[in-house]
Amino acid sequence: MATLSEKAAENLARLREKKPLIHNITNYVVMNYTANALLAMGASPVMAHAQNEVEDMVSFAGALVLNIGTLTDDWIASMIKAGKKASEQGTPIILDPVGSGATPLRTNAAKQIIEGSKISVIRGNASEILSLRHADSKTKGVDSIHAVDEAAQTAKILAEELQTTLVITGPVDLITDGKRIVRVSNGHPLMGYVTGTGCTATVAIGAFLAVEEDSVCAAATALAFFGLAGEVAGETATAPGSFMIKMIDALYTITPDKLREKSKIENETQRH
Amino acid sequence: MATLSEKAAENLARLREKKPLIHNITNYVVMNYTANALLAMGASPVMAHAQNEVEDMVSFAGALVLNIGTLTDDWIASMIKAGKKASEQGTPIILDPVGSGATPLRTNAAKQIIEGSKISVIRGNASEILSLRHADSKTKGVDSIHAVDEAAQTAKILAEELQTTLVITGPVDLITDGKRIVRVSNGHPLMGYVTGTGCTATVAIGAFLAVEEDSVCAAATALAFFGLAGEVAGETATAPGSFMIKMIDALYTITPDKLREKSKIENETQRH
Amino acid sequence: MATLSEKAAENLARLREKKPLIHNITNYVVMNYTANALLAMGASPVMAHAQNEVEDMVSFAGALVLNIGTLTDDWIASMIKAGKKASEQGTPIILDPVGSGATPLRTNAAKQIIEGSKISVIRGNASEILSLRHADSKTKGVDSIHAVDEAAQTAKILAEELQTTLVITGPVDLITDGKRIVRVSNGHPLMGYVTGTGCTATVAIGAFLAVEEDSVCAAATALAFFGLAGEVAGETATAPGSFMIKMIDALYTITPDKLREKSKIENETQRH
Repeated sequence: MATLSEKAAENLARLREKKPLIHNITNYVVMNYTANALLAMGASPVMAHAQNEVEDMVSFAGALVLNIGTLTDDWIASMIKAGKKASEQGTPIILDPVGSGATPLRTNAAKQIIEGSKISVIRGNASEILSLRHADSKTKGVDSIHAVDEAAQTAKILAEELQTTLVITGPVDLITDGKRIVRVSNGHPLMGYVTGTGCTATVAIGAFLAVEEDSVCAAATALAFFGLAGEVAGETATAPGSFMIKMIDALYTITPDKLREKSKIENETQRH
Repeated sequence: MATLSEKAAENLARLREKKPLIHNITNYVVMNYTANALLAMGASPVMAHAQNEVEDMVSFAGALVLNIGTLTDDWIASMIKAGKKASEQGTPIILDPVGSGATPLRTNAAKQIIEGSKISVIRGNASEILSLRHADSKTKGVDSIHAVDEAAQTAKILAEELQTTLVITGPVDLITDGKRIVRVSNGHPLMGYVTGTGCTATVAIGAFLAVEEDSVCAAATALAFFGLAGEVAGETATAPGSFMIKMIDALYTITPDKLREKSKIENETQRH
Repeated sequence: MATLSEKAAENLARLREKKPLIHNITNYVVMNYTANALLAMGASPVMAHAQNEVEDMVSFAGALVLNIGTLTDDWIASMIKAGKKASEQGTPIILDPVGSGATPLRTNAAKQIIEGSKISVIRGNASEILSLRHADSKTKGVDSIHAVDEAAQTAKILAEELQTTLVITGPVDLITDGKRIVRVSNGHPLMGYVTGTGCTATVAIGAFLAVEEDSVCAAATALAFFGLAGEVAGETATAPGSFMIKMIDALYTITPDKLREKSKIENETQRH
């Protein structure tokens, strides 16, 4: 059976061959950078948010990316509409609940989007992901989210409740669909100094969801690939401006072979 | 009589001397990159889209750029308002019908803008441009748009019908006002891996429309200049991140003399 | 007593230690660049503009940046709402009146925002700042704004009338709170070829307002630091694409010691 690293290499080759269209309804800050990242890695981005257009646009797409940064009510309505249409079609959806937990607008928007659509993957940091719990969630009693193993168990229960794959990114990324737990440790400290690296990890997952049916595997591929791009950029860049440009370069130059060799993907079962 | 390459060099010198204000109503994805491109080439960009401001703003402008990516109804109304005002003043307008043909919102918006204004140039890829045909267009029967000569003839008829100059960009760019056909073959393959290179070609045409009355000549200048910037960037950049930054550099450093020497502009009459 | 250069060094060290959250309601063109600039210098940016979210968001912020480029009525309402909340909390506010004086929408918006909030600093170019005068301003009779000393006196009177600190940026930046006049002469000519350098100077002032109570000192720190980043970038970059990336790098790499050594901050009293 192929390892996740071997599958990551195959997925990258497939992405560059198929060049799937990725429909993004996303925040203003990262539109340009995420579009360039998608192009560099081999996908084809489109950004469209009008309520009277999103259903038409998503009908062509290989995946739908919903990102709630710089949100307003109009955009929430568009995301819900696009999400419903994508769900009907069986088009994979990834949600990035940027700032969920920080303001009621964002927390409520994230929950509304989740209720109205079949979301394949939700990616955020720990507090964004945990803000998505229902009032009666079994995960509610867990106070500390800092201990890695507790966070993993909490995320596992929540993924089962939400019937989706959850991705919590950080120095080590955690992926769980409620059954499996996978960790990815590729990455570079300068990624924290570039705006929208989380959002860009999200679009990378979106791109791989368009070519890989297993959400956990798609997320692991994307995070290993994106983290490796950071490592490659960090070989020559020492400050965030140069680094962000070299990350785009790396998304274009990393080969499937290099990804297989350098990816740091770990199954929970391998850990114990 | 001066060749188009000689005129291109003169136009670039004039652009840098006059620094015309270019008013852009454009999509979110490319606002930053096109503003930087305009500054680098020597123009002065302003982005403004409020319905209660666009008429005031366009009254100062040397050219108006309308780009329908990331469109909503409010933005369509602003584009129509700005387009009318520019037409009354005799300010040249360039339309970039991003995604026209892909969704009804975009196709209809492009047609509405064309009907309401006097557009000097429309720039798009082949399918965007051909989506602008009327139901009774003489170009309708032409099925294949792939054969270069057929595309050229179709575009020529359509330009005459729309009474404008059409620009179809691709590996070789085609410019026609319904009478003349000009081809420009400057460019670099990495341009296809940077988001908004089409949109940036459009703002370059906008900039030259502000200093050159002949739309065909302005478009030929812009496309040779912009394609040459890609060639110069491609001399040292091998991946799209570095490439897009070096393209901005090249727009700043290419001299009129270099443009005259390196531009690859061909009149149809020279071809046969 | 510490000089402003010594205080600038202390402020930079404090910024990197405290990493204040800066809430931006700003224009589409510069959102990505200013977010990256804030991260590079050591602050933490958030962009949020929904009327039903801005009060929640600003309640966490160390400073609020209001920038009226790419304005519409909805955004004006959000800026006024966020400004009122920030004023109640004592959170410092900086206003960038982009294009004030050019169109009635912008001039009126700037004035409305100023009336509704307690603004710590307003940064613009000379014509933007002078457009903020009341009909009965004592500064109204001053016709020439070109002579440096006259501009300084005009700004001083206006700062007193508006009860704020005014910053007029240019080859030499002028800062006045109606009593003190400070000039900063760090900078590089290529800064004029990058879109949003003014807006980025504004967010830098916002960042330092979050860690330095004296608005004049915060502005002097920010402008010396930002101008020095331009100087450092200009040591190796010769065109605006590379330059804008190296400016981000420099905002990350410049140390407090280097800032103290290289800052060119002059008190009016030192000049005479």
